[in-house]
Amino acid sequence: MFELKIDDARYWKSCVEAIGSLIDEGAFNITKEGVSLKAMDPSGISMVSFFIPNKAFSKYDVEKETNVGLNLDNLVKVLSSTAGNEQLVMKDSNNRFVLEFIGQNSKRKYRLPMIEVRKEPEKEPKIEFESNIELKSDSFKEMLKHANLMSSYIGFKVEKSMLSVMAKGDTGELEEEYSVNGDMVKKIEAGKSSSATFNEDYLSKIVGAAPSDSIIVMHLKTDEPMKVDYKIGDASVLYYLAPYIES
Amino acid sequence: MFELKIDDARYWKSCVEAIGSLIDEGAFNITKEGVSLKAMDPSGISMVSFFIPNKAFSKYDVEKETNVGLNLDNLVKVLSSTAGNEQLVMKDSNNRFVLEFIGQNSKRKYRLPMIEVRKEPEKEPKIEFESNIELKSDSFKEMLKHANLMSSYIGFKVEKSMLSVMAKGDTGELEEEYSVNGDMVKKIEAGKSSSATFNEDYLSKIVGAAPSDSIIVMHLKTDEPMKVDYKIGDASVLYYLAPYIES
Amino acid sequence: MFELKIDDARYWKSCVEAIGSLIDEGAFNITKEGVSLKAMDPSGISMVSFFIPNKAFSKYDVEKETNVGLNLDNLVKVLSSTAGNEQLVMKDSNNRFVLEFIGQNSKRKYRLPMIEVRKEPEKEPKIEFESNIELKSDSFKEMLKHANLMSSYIGFKVEKSMLSVMAKGDTGELEEEYSVNGDMVKKIEAGKSSSATFNEDYLSKIVGAAPSDSIIVMHLKTDEPMKVDYKIGDASVLYYLAPYIES
Repeated sequence: MFELKIDDARYWKSCVEAIGSLIDEGAFNITKEGVSLKAMDPSGISMVSFFIPNKAFSKYDVEKETNVGLNLDNLVKVLSSTAGNEQLVMKDSNNRFVLEFIGQNSKRKYRLPMIEVRKEPEKEPKIEFESNIELKSDSFKEMLKHANLMSSYIGFKVEKSMLSVMAKGDTGELEEEYSVNGDMVKKIEAGKSSSATFNEDYLSKIVGAAPSDSIIVMHLKTDEPMKVDYKIGDASVLYYLAPYIES
Repeated sequence: MFELKIDDARYWKSCVEAIGSLIDEGAFNITKEGVSLKAMDPSGISMVSFFIPNKAFSKYDVEKETNVGLNLDNLVKVLSSTAGNEQLVMKDSNNRFVLEFIGQNSKRKYRLPMIEVRKEPEKEPKIEFESNIELKSDSFKEMLKHANLMSSYIGFKVEKSMLSVMAKGDTGELEEEYSVNGDMVKKIEAGKSSSATFNEDYLSKIVGAAPSDSIIVMHLKTDEPMKVDYKIGDASVLYYLAPYIES
Repeated sequence: MFELKIDDARYWKSCVEAIGSLIDEGAFNITKEGVSLKAMDPSGISMVSFFIPNKAFSKYDVEKETNVGLNLDNLVKVLSSTAGNEQLVMKDSNNRFVLEFIGQNSKRKYRLPMIEVRKEPEKEPKIEFESNIELKSDSFKEMLKHANLMSSYIGFKVEKSMLSVMAKGDTGELEEEYSVNGDMVKKIEAGKSSSATFNEDYLSKIVGAAPSDSIIVMHLKTDEPMKVDYKIGDASVLYYLAPYIES
């Protein structure tokens, strides 16, 4: 039994969108400390790890740890029904996940079936990253668009205090260079120069739900999975994405 | 022979859109009193009854009663060509329906073929409705969207001074409750509690052309057709929609 | 070897869009005087002739005349990657066409393959036009939309100081009349009355990239190709379009 209340339903929508961009279904783990979800995408190329602490809720009643498996596409749709100015209460009732949107003059209650979610080995990979880059989510999204004009794969290379982005395809090649600057790239830490290539489509989904003014942190090691993390208010979202290695 | 002039072509466009959302073709009945159109949609599930009085026109010359059968899709398209600031003259000429858009420096004349429209038994059903609800068209449209997330059928229930909306499908259930409040629901009159279920798609088309600040009046009787009516300026639009009864 | 610099990358984008709307690939002819491109569209119904003088560039280094064949779809896409506030340097390097977008804190370099472009007999037709019309590009685009409701062919007729537009199809007929007026039609010169009919789709592509406040000049002769020209800043764009003659 749990009952969680969030004062702005749209905030919870942003959180679920960040998870749902990669994952069709997942199990929220609800404990006294907060709500978390870890899952791999169906292809096994990426994983997401989400956590929101209890303090983000205006009411947080959790008797005991509970797992709530849900179809996330469906959940995102239901959350999209809010036009703002609504509170959201989430609770369980008769093996249903209940979402109650409370507006000034209306009350809307959705009951969603809980589903069995296949338990994944949700261990995060242990990687000693060689370089860390902090950049604005908008700039990151722009980079991905630039690269996508040439290829569906995007290469990153960090060397000293320079981030290079590369993409190469039948229609041509892109090379883009960024140094640290207040507007777009906040920090480049390169203990060692590192480079790796990733699927652009997955990366777009990963950062797609990041608030437009948020800071994305990208962790790289040559030809190893990339770690990407960012915050949505008090919630933290973290992804791993396997590199693309040309065979 | 008739010649009708309307000062804002866009106003007539709104009127025809309200009819054309459900009906592909129809016959306007033009009399000295005004212009009316009654028709059933091709599936026979809904009917529309439209009337606009002569006073809505800045010129209204009608020699004798005339019927003008038109393809309404086509008529809506032609009316969509106005970007505003145009007067509209409508007349008949050589068995054509002529629309003349008169702008400050231009004149645009469309001639549309009149078509034979199958005469329908256009009697409005006689129902003693049990409850009447007045609500803002925007709120109505929102309700339909909320319900559509769960099902393509939407149930209404009126009991005392409470309107409930329900939808139930494979992906979950919705229950929504409204009491009278200044913003959304203006009036709930329930002589007797009543409930019925309708096709959401038809309802969306019915209210789709209602001006966003207009008041929709919904008349219900348990498991009987719903009557919906609203005004577009001086014109009145009225629909009947058959209920969906689970077999 | 050449190196051209333009201070606003978006300006060059507008120029290439005007060419690329009709033509998939073409060869830019780069001389000391400026950059030009002449090509017929694949169907042979229209031709475009583009010229931009060297003064439009902030840097213009051209050693000797060069032809650069490019896929224009691809070029437009790459140019669309600029969100503004970027300079653009274009040069050749190792048989590649290089576009360098230079922002305040970033540098983005695309390398596009040069392609062999079939040489066309690019002679402009010699026609003694009977009438010239100058009108605002927005008004021209509106006319095309009005006509397209009735037919995919649009007829123009110029007689004395009146421009008539006609379109006729299964769903009806359009007749539109314009006289000279400050807002839309700037000038109508009719030495002789002339009329011709054209494919609306081609005309839409021809004026599609014209800046919204630009003046389109249309040259007509009965049943002969139409010439259309307009300016994009210092660049001039000129099209010929073959008439449609009912067989």
